[in-house]
Amino acid sequence: MTFSFELLTEDKNSHARAGLIHTSHGDIPTPVFAPVGTLATVKTLTPADLHTLQATLILSNTYHLYLRPGADVIADFGGLHHFMGWHGPILTDSGGFQVFSLAGLRDIDEQGVTFRSHLDGSTHRFTPESVIAIEEKLGADIIMTFDECPAPDDYHYNVEALDRTHRWAERCKAAHHRPDQALYGIVQGGVFADLRARSAEFLTSLDFPGYGIGGLSVGETKAQMHAMLEVLHPLLPRHKPRYLMGVGSPEDLFECVARGIDQFDCVLPTRIARNGAVLTKHGRLNLRNACYTADKNPIEADCQCYTCRNFSLAYLRHLIIAKEVLALQLTTLHNLYFMLETMRRIRQSIFDGTFSDYRAQFLAVYQPVVAEDE
Amino acid sequence: MTFSFELLTEDKNSHARAGLIHTSHGDIPTPVFAPVGTLATVKTLTPADLHTLQATLILSNTYHLYLRPGADVIADFGGLHHFMGWHGPILTDSGGFQVFSLAGLRDIDEQGVTFRSHLDGSTHRFTPESVIAIEEKLGADIIMTFDECPAPDDYHYNVEALDRTHRWAERCKAAHHRPDQALYGIVQGGVFADLRARSAEFLTSLDFPGYGIGGLSVGETKAQMHAMLEVLHPLLPRHKPRYLMGVGSPEDLFECVARGIDQFDCVLPTRIARNGAVLTKHGRLNLRNACYTADKNPIEADCQCYTCRNFSLAYLRHLIIAKEVLALQLTTLHNLYFMLETMRRIRQSIFDGTFSDYRAQFLAVYQPVVAEDE
Repeated sequence: MTFSFELLTEDKNSHARAGLIHTSHGDIPTPVFAPVGTLATVKTLTPADLHTLQATLILSNTYHLYLRPGADVIADFGGLHHFMGWHGPILTDSGGFQVFSLAGLRDIDEQGVTFRSHLDGSTHRFTPESVIAIEEKLGADIIMTFDECPAPDDYHYNVEALDRTHRWAERCKAAHHRPDQALYGIVQGGVFADLRARSAEFLTSLDFPGYGIGGLSVGETKAQMHAMLEVLHPLLPRHKPRYLMGVGSPEDLFECVARGIDQFDCVLPTRIARNGAVLTKHGRLNLRNACYTADKNPIEADCQCYTCRNFSLAYLRHLIIAKEVLALQLTTLHNLYFMLETMRRIRQSIFDGTFSDYRAQFLAVYQPVVAEDE
Repeated sequence: MTFSFELLTEDKNSHARAGLIHTSHGDIPTPVFAPVGTLATVKTLTPADLHTLQATLILSNTYHLYLRPGADVIADFGGLHHFMGWHGPILTDSGGFQVFSLAGLRDIDEQGVTFRSHLDGSTHRFTPESVIAIEEKLGADIIMTFDECPAPDDYHYNVEALDRTHRWAERCKAAHHRPDQALYGIVQGGVFADLRARSAEFLTSLDFPGYGIGGLSVGETKAQMHAMLEVLHPLLPRHKPRYLMGVGSPEDLFECVARGIDQFDCVLPTRIARNGAVLTKHGRLNLRNACYTADKNPIEADCQCYTCRNFSLAYLRHLIIAKEVLALQLTTLHNLYFMLETMRRIRQSIFDGTFSDYRAQFLAVYQPVVAEDE
């Protein structure tokens, strides 16, 4: 087993932690934000760009890669790292979230899920065993158990789904053999403290090397999400990484690191970039706005990213209005730099004992687009 | 005047020449292929990418920049170099080719051309004086006179258009004042040797620092194009650069360098890249082809471009099929590397006295898509 987690320090005023995940493709300083590379590419960026950004972990999606180009094609290359030319750490999800999002196109039973491809309507079946086999072919450093991600607020359905997800977690663990991969269990239980606690208790009994927290940021409020993290903090093992799946707006980094989270991934910074929106310490800017037509300033004067060091708001707006591909790259570069640099500062502040100050200072001026408890 | 051209050597077996153009933004070794950056961006690439490719000159389009973002916006930045973050040499065309391509949307008179924007149908007017004023605002190192580019095979219309183009060339020269820009005259005359000769004679009498050759690669045969270059070779001044406008497929580089051309630009390598076609020493490959689904080879085993050093045909095909933006970047990088590296080798072979051998060797295995004299 080449995977391990070192807990290096804990904040005195919150549950924030700083650590280091070791993998056979390199170390991941935590807390960490993982850019999303759904189809074996972080959209618009080269691996060289990701190195320049100092990304240390990227996520790729099992469901999407299973459909295109297929796990066997990637296995034939020796795995995702070789296929996509990114030789740092990679995490793959299990496809559970994607498959259960295919409303009307999937059918769940005890053994697994039958679903129809969103691409061509063809029928496929995932079971815990088949998903682990796919994830072993993809060869990521961190892989996830196959779980069900139900609507967060139906208690009775969450009970039923949770028990099945637990049985699937056991089957995933039994099916997993690659010693160079860490298989994380995924805590579910919707917005219900008792179910989250039960899930944490069950999964930790299986002794996974890390734990995902799934089913959040799918419709519940931020307050509900935070409450669930507070329930889980004392229940999850201190010396194992905790990964809050699919979460990672700028404000989430602060609020969830403060509640003990070590790993994040989120499509938000890259998706909004492709729509012409960029992140700043004051919130989002929409670069299509006519007020930027002749604006010589960069997105942020003190940002050290390639985009801010070289280009004006006017140039970025021009590229967006003209539908130039370069716009997508430059906004994506900035937004990922913003996320990764913010996380590096968070980590340093945990070591320095100033995390609470940095959190308060950041949140005092940052305007989230979606209001707290909206 | 900061612009000058040094003729460094001439081939013994052809009219090939190697030289150096000096500009205030750097030197341009010739012969040179200029990537096209229509809207102040070489589509899909950053200026850093262009430096890595060792591009030494890029072209941008006056007509397109006049419409978006407008010459005044760019002038307010101190010119195109500052606006787009490319601090090497830039050439702007005069918009003539674009305006005269707007069939049904433009009206020519002795003073200039009234035309409708292809974007919104709004009415605009270009005159020799207004075009030079725009090109001075854009601030490129090499700028072009405003010319008419008629269909190449109507003799009587070419006579009429040529005389007007010559009067416009005189007006452009009179209107041009920036000492840091070189204004090239453009030889026209369709496929008619007598008109080409007349045009060369008239324009050289105006003593421009360089000469464009326009109106070729617009429907005539390759043999006709070559014949025109052979007519012009002895008529154009030996110590001035000769720029064959809008021409530059791989085979054209060899055939036209051999006929005395120093400068090329062409959208072909970047445009076909965005359609999934890449250039190799054997001709074009269409990466959508299913035969590449699991192909671990790069586009070309001995190519030193970023794409070939890092990615397989299978990965590139996957990105193209999945419509990932990264595909456009990686194919563009390869195709421009292919063009620029081929031109570097051509230049070296002229110094080495081996150009004719290299030309024969390249053309023996390269299969153009469009056959000679098609």
